[in-house]
Amino acid sequence: MRLELLCTGDELLDGSVPDTNSPWFMEQLAPLGMRPAAVTLVGDRLEEIARALREAASRSDVLLVSGGLGPTLDDLTAEVAAQVAGVPLEEHGPTWSSIQKRFAERGVALSPNNRKQALVPRGADVHPNPAGTAPCFVLGLGRCTCFFVAGVPREYRALVEGVVLPALRARLGAEPGRLFRAARVLKTVLLPESHLDARVRPLVPAHPHVRFGTRTRAPENHLKLLAEGDTQHEADGRLAAAERDCRAALGEWVFGVDGDRYEEVLVRELSRRGRTAAVAESCTGGRIAAQLTSVPGASEVLLGGAVVYTEAAKQRWAHVPAGLLASAGAVSAEVARALASGIRAECGTDYGVGVTGYAGPGGGTEANPVGTVFVCVAGPAGQVLEQRVSFPGDRERVQRFATAQALELLRRAVAAG
Amino acid sequence: MRLELLCTGDELLDGSVPDTNSPWFMEQLAPLGMRPAAVTLVGDRLEEIARALREAASRSDVLLVSGGLGPTLDDLTAEVAAQVAGVPLEEHGPTWSSIQKRFAERGVALSPNNRKQALVPRGADVHPNPAGTAPCFVLGLGRCTCFFVAGVPREYRALVEGVVLPALRARLGAEPGRLFRAARVLKTVLLPESHLDARVRPLVPAHPHVRFGTRTRAPENHLKLLAEGDTQHEADGRLAAAERDCRAALGEWVFGVDGDRYEEVLVRELSRRGRTAAVAESCTGGRIAAQLTSVPGASEVLLGGAVVYTEAAKQRWAHVPAGLLASAGAVSAEVARALASGIRAECGTDYGVGVTGYAGPGGGTEANPVGTVFVCVAGPAGQVLEQRVSFPGDRERVQRFATAQALELLRRAVAAG
Repeated sequence: MRLELLCTGDELLDGSVPDTNSPWFMEQLAPLGMRPAAVTLVGDRLEEIARALREAASRSDVLLVSGGLGPTLDDLTAEVAAQVAGVPLEEHGPTWSSIQKRFAERGVALSPNNRKQALVPRGADVHPNPAGTAPCFVLGLGRCTCFFVAGVPREYRALVEGVVLPALRARLGAEPGRLFRAARVLKTVLLPESHLDARVRPLVPAHPHVRFGTRTRAPENHLKLLAEGDTQHEADGRLAAAERDCRAALGEWVFGVDGDRYEEVLVRELSRRGRTAAVAESCTGGRIAAQLTSVPGASEVLLGGAVVYTEAAKQRWAHVPAGLLASAGAVSAEVARALASGIRAECGTDYGVGVTGYAGPGGGTEANPVGTVFVCVAGPAGQVLEQRVSFPGDRERVQRFATAQALELLRRAVAAG
Repeated sequence: MRLELLCTGDELLDGSVPDTNSPWFMEQLAPLGMRPAAVTLVGDRLEEIARALREAASRSDVLLVSGGLGPTLDDLTAEVAAQVAGVPLEEHGPTWSSIQKRFAERGVALSPNNRKQALVPRGADVHPNPAGTAPCFVLGLGRCTCFFVAGVPREYRALVEGVVLPALRARLGAEPGRLFRAARVLKTVLLPESHLDARVRPLVPAHPHVRFGTRTRAPENHLKLLAEGDTQHEADGRLAAAERDCRAALGEWVFGVDGDRYEEVLVRELSRRGRTAAVAESCTGGRIAAQLTSVPGASEVLLGGAVVYTEAAKQRWAHVPAGLLASAGAVSAEVARALASGIRAECGTDYGVGVTGYAGPGGGTEANPVGTVFVCVAGPAGQVLEQRVSFPGDRERVQRFATAQALELLRRAVAAG
């Protein structure tokens, strides 16, 4: 089944808005074992859309067209679709009623333009839009089934999930010799892609019906598994076997699966164990605290965060002795350790996290050049986890990786504790 | 001049990597008054690339093809280009020499594959790649000039800046009746797009040779100005006049222009005036400090940051009286004020910033529902700037907007001080 995507909108071509819909859709397609053969972006020009629509439909079985279904003059997609199909536009009664109802409920006046959104090509299947006013319509062009959906990401996602993906699943299911599929993503952080690959590669021959792939979201690397079988039960079983082997090979590097977010996993784990933490950050400058507090409920587990660039702040908030700063230097394993245990004592938490390093571009010494970071976690039973790491790249990258390293040490400490 | 982009690579079609090259290139095109007519993404399949190349070249004057120039088997672009042009691939001597030199300098062994990167279609113009091994080559297909560049963003940008943009500028310059252009972006934060539009719209008729546009990077909104003239001097003059009027209409909302980053502007301004700041963050959880410390040199002006979710932390690090927390409530104008002046005193800085609010999804009261945030800046002469704001949206959005609001109050206070 050949699938293409056609995205319309001037904003996609002048650099105003990147196309985030297509990458999101591709991620949804992965568990089906599908990917588009091509993606085309065109502006709000009638002839461009018509040409791209005609060409993509002529070479595809399924086409997803997005954007240009709004109420304004430059929303041309329904008109183009009708023109290419050689049918007139017609008002779709239920859509017009639901638009009127929606506006009435919100007490907003209807403009004549709004009626335009109820116009669809004659003969199209129409599906209501749960997240907006522009309906989804499905139209055959030759042998190609074309889905037309709104381009606003919230509406796009609702319609892809509600209409397009179910139709694709049904179509795959009706194919002769159809295969069933099951997918899983195992997520790691700070494990280089080549190391991930080296650990997993020996397992590939034992799982001939499972496709292995990797995906980088630095500093995270993800292992993608896609199993196939003649029944869903068979596919699920094959996936489970491969996942078991991969988890054994990756050990504690796996922090989560599928849609898990790193910081959510960590906050959840602290919460579940009734543990609390505090952080003292020098070179990460607040990023560790910010990442944790992006999670609802983080206030229950993160009792304090201190950004301690200056020596005075290190001394006052994390009780780092002035003598140690002078003897070991502010960027040192000793100071990272003092920050971790000091902030733990200051905030009365189970865990204390300390980070100090050279984020660059200035600073650094011969022994500890820019990119060197000392990370330490002090735990409840006096245990200490610590690491000296050296990250290449610019300031943003060093800060991002140092933050991930600190959180990963904390996660390991919590898991061990 | 019709321009299209063709991007190749399986990673663009399986959701692994979004195409960030094209939006970046579009931003570079804006000052030339150009935008691509279409963008096509295809995978590493010979027939797909060939088809897309043939079609895009047949309808364009200029085509930028990216990706597929690496040393591996699935790097097919040079081969496809030669095939579509009907010429053989030939080794380009200077490229092969420079690849050998590059590897020798790094002490890395050459593999036979590396020689592949020196192969280009016969008759192509070859330009060295300052950031990698795959050269850029330029090939005519019919009336279309095709630029082939590497897809790695660092190499893509170097080659677009070094080869493609100069060629486009020269070509625009040689067009009969050619217009000269000058562009500027004026950046604001927290000014709604409709308000930005309302302030600027009355100025449009007075500047008939200037195009006005807006661009949203929430919470920032940008005004884009593009002036045209028969000479560069005329275009520059028209741009300057429009910019002057727009600055008058937007007043202190304009924080920077073109490539300016908000936090850089603020750190630079604090630095220039020899001023220092400290922040006490409750609901923003470290984001304010993290945003400031993303700027090199921030340690000179941000002397301390405290993440004070808990009452204990508010009391200890920002000297908020326990009685005030009990009487006014932790989320209140009074506590924001106490945080600002308390952290200022604690760190001995010129400015203190305090933030408290309900980021959601839980929490909130009838009077102060989720999304309500109190922000306060205390300054050196006892002056206080404060604001109660209410942001719709999820936790991430409330935190992002609250952070921007706190930084903007600080910027205004510094500018006034």
